This record gives sequence, structure tokens and C-alpha cells, in this order.
Amino acid sequence: MALWRITVAYDGTDFAGWQAQGETVPSRTVQATLESALGRFSGGPRVVVVGAGRTDTGVHALGQVASFALEKDVAPADLQRALNAILPRDVRVLEAAPAPAGFHARKSALSKLYRYELDTGRVQIPTRRRVAGHVPWRLDEAAVRSAAELFRGQHDFASLASAGSSVRTTVRTILRSEVLFEGATMIYEVEADGFLRRMVRSLVGGLVAAGRGALGVEELRCALLARDRRAWPPPAEARGLTLVHVAYAAPAAPM
Amino acid sequence: MALWRITVAYDGTDFAGWQAQGETVPSRTVQATLESALGRFSGGPRVVVVGAGRTDTGVHALGQVASFALEKDVAPADLQRALNAILPRDVRVLEAAPAPAGFHARKSALSKLYRYELDTGRVQIPTRRRVAGHVPWRLDEAAVRSAAELFRGQHDFASLASAGSSVRTTVRTILRSEVLFEGATMIYEVEADGFLRRMVRSLVGGLVAAGRGALGVEELRCALLARDRRAWPPPAEARGLTLVHVAYAAPAAPM
Repeated sequence: MALWRITVAYDGTDFAGWQAQGETVPSRTVQATLESALGRFSGGPRVVVVGAGRTDTGVHALGQVASFALEKDVAPADLQRALNAILPRDVRVLEAAPAPAGFHARKSALSKLYRYELDTGRVQIPTRRRVAGHVPWRLDEAAVRSAAELFRGQHDFASLASAGSSVRTTVRTILRSEVLFEGATMIYEVEADGFLRRMVRSLVGGLVAAGRGALGVEELRCALLARDRRAWPPPAEARGLTLVHVAYAAPAAPM
Repeated sequence: MALWRITVAYDGTDFAGWQAQGETVPSRTVQATLESALGRFSGGPRVVVVGAGRTDTGVHALGQVASFALEKDVAPADLQRALNAILPRDVRVLEAAPAPAGFHARKSALSKLYRYELDTGRVQIPTRRRVAGHVPWRLDEAAVRSAAELFRGQHDFASLASAGSSVRTTVRTILRSEVLFEGATMIYEVEADGFLRRMVRSLVGGLVAAGRGALGVEELRCALLARDRRAWPPPAEARGLTLVHVAYAAPAAPM
């Protein structure tokens, strides 16, 4: 058995997220799509694929990382080519590489970088609909930037946690929280050691509330400190969100 | 009857182009979709919509212009809102304005600007599939730029005309022909007083042939002078093409 690590990009529009959320009717997920492709490739028993980030329905990936063990012996480039030949066009394997012993796409991840694109024109351009959220309000750039700064560092993000979530702790450390405006589009990049479910979309909801003046930056700070979901503005739509990169420790140099 | 001019954006992926090409089974076209929305809005007889550019299946628009006459009296902003409320989400009216007497979206146009986006990475990112063409070859940027320069000015583009085309003349003047490279993406912008059917895609086909070294720039010049379709490289895919802007003479100043 060899351990593998693949970098995967997908258009999340037609997927019910990375993995099934316990629905009774099985839905099309990225994880199941990859497992089915690996099953066809290996011809063996079910291959269990672990993803670094459990992206929601409609959320895209440029650099999702997944790990799995494979019995069949194959060269990395051949595994990539074979999987891309089997996979549907909305999922692509960008790289396949042997993983070090004990590698686990989620547990070994040091940080994840997400990007959110939000169009703020009065009418959204149709070709942007699948890849960007939309609000028809001009945002106050200075207020959005102040809100983004507020998120940086270690905080208890309980106000941004989904209902019924059973995580051990809601404390996370945001390493990077940056906003860029390009014409009528706001681009938000956020990197953290981990994210609660829907956390990025909730952060963007906070940026929008600050940018349109619904909440002042001080009120947003209080809403964060409140550790109460009802204090926080509604989350942004899934379609603007992309998992861009997952960082791991560099492999130890050979001795 | 008032004459109107609207600026329209659409995602061409799920349309069989701007207008039907004489199929026996009616297909979903942008023109018919707009005419149906105007019919519902006006409640009167069929409203005939003329488009500036007859975009092909899969081709997008950011600034298509269409003209039509309407009996119903309405304010421009109300017409825009009403149409967007009726239209499917892959077509949006960005602006509606009264048009000067005699205005005809196609015949009054002075020039049109198209943009083509081509991804040249080994694997195309799934979220780019609807809006960018793809070739898995690194292109020689200098060769592509030389080819783009070659297209500028007045030429007989018979080598790029579609088979069975019945246009009066295949002479067109290219006012602008510029290439930009952003990472692994090539962006080509071309403006002309008019375009033959599939002409932009054929120009891009020429750029790709030059960029991958299949044809030298001199050979491309000869292929253009040959005025023979068989001499020209195959056209690029439709999905990377967008009609960006249509230019008209500024309305005469009121006396």
C-alpha cells in the first residue's frame, strides 16, 4: 500500500459539497466522485479519500488536497493522467505525489487559504454568477478594510459557528485577512489554522455589513465578542468561495 | 412607437447563439429570449429585436447592443428592471435608453470589440471551462505578439471566412489587435469595423499556431494573403470569446 496526496481543483456549482452531510438520498459529492474514479482505476476494494477542507455545496477549489492509500503501483504522472481521463470535467487532478508516512490531508494541514469574490455592481454579469457572490450595494472600502483587520489573530469565533456544530473548540487563529477591490469586485483572502463550518462566508457577511454601514466596525467587534450566532450578520452565498491553498510542513530533508 | 437601445450581457454557454441559424427544431437563442421577455412586458404584438453582433453558440457578451421599437410608454430604468425580472439569470440588461431616430443596433455600429481568453496550462481549472478556451501548450509570447500585429489594418480576410458564407465583401479593417499574458492565460482583444462569421476564433487559431510554432509569422502572412480557408489554422473554441463593446457615433448635439 502506498500513501498518495493529490491536489484537486473543481467547480463546486454542480456538487453537493466535498462530502455527503447525511442525506438519505445520495448526492453528487467531490469525495464520492474521486473515490469512484479511484475505484475504477485500481479495480480493487473501496479507496477512502480524505480531503483537507470539507467545502460546502457550491464552493469551489483551486488547491484542495486529498490523501488516500492505493495498492496498485503507478507513477505519479500516470496516476494524474488516468484519474483525469476518468473524472468528469468539473474536477481535475492538478498534481499527484507520494505522501510521507502518516500523512493525512486534513490532520496534517497547518493552514488553509480561502478566497471570496463578491461583485457589487447593480446587476451581476451572467458569466460571473457561478464564481462570485453578489450584493447590489457599493461598499465603503475603508470600513471593509477595518473589519478585515479586526478578524486577524486568535479569536473565539463562536458567533460564526453553524447551529448544531459539535466542534471541540471554536477558537481559531487567522493568519491573513486581506481585502482587494478591483473595479466593482471585492476580493477577500483569508488564511487560518482552521475554519469552522461556513466561517469564511460568515466573515464575508461581516465585511458586507460593515461596508454597507449596517454595522459599525465597533459593533462588529462586539458581535464577535458576544460568542452568539444571533449577533452576527448573515453569511455570504457559497458560489463566491474558493479553497485556494492548503499548507503542510515541508517534508524533513533526507539524512 | 419609441425606438430603444439596450446593452445586454449574457453567459452564452446554454444558448444556441444570438439567433437561430435555420434549424428545424427551434433552439434557445438570446434574441428569442429577449423577444419573449419584451412580448410579456408589452403584452402587444411580437417585438423584433436586432442585435449588433450575431454571436455563435457558447459565445458570451458583456456589452452586446440590441435595438427594438416599443409601443408601451415606460421610463428607461423601469424597462431595465422589468426585463431583468422576466429574463432568465444568464441574460441581464445592463442599460436601457431611448435610441435616436433611425438607430439600428447592427447597421449603426461603427466598430465592435471582442475579447478571447485562452488558458495554456497543462490542465484547465474547472471554474474557467465556461469562459476560457484551452490549449495545453506553452505559447511563444513574442511570436503571438508578432502575429497579432500582422492582423492590424485593412485586409481581405477570405482565408478566415466560414464555408458557404454569402457576405458581399471579406475586406475588414482591424483597428486594434492586442495580446496580454497573465500567468498561464492569454488574453486577446480585437476591435474592427466588422467581423466575418467565426473570424475572431480564426484569428485566435492563427495566434495559437504561431505561438506553438506550427506556423511562422511569415507563413501566417502568406496564409492570410492566400484568401483560401484551407490555408488557415483551425479556429479556437467558442467558449473563450466575449463581445465586450459596440461603438456608435456620438449622438449629434442638440441645436
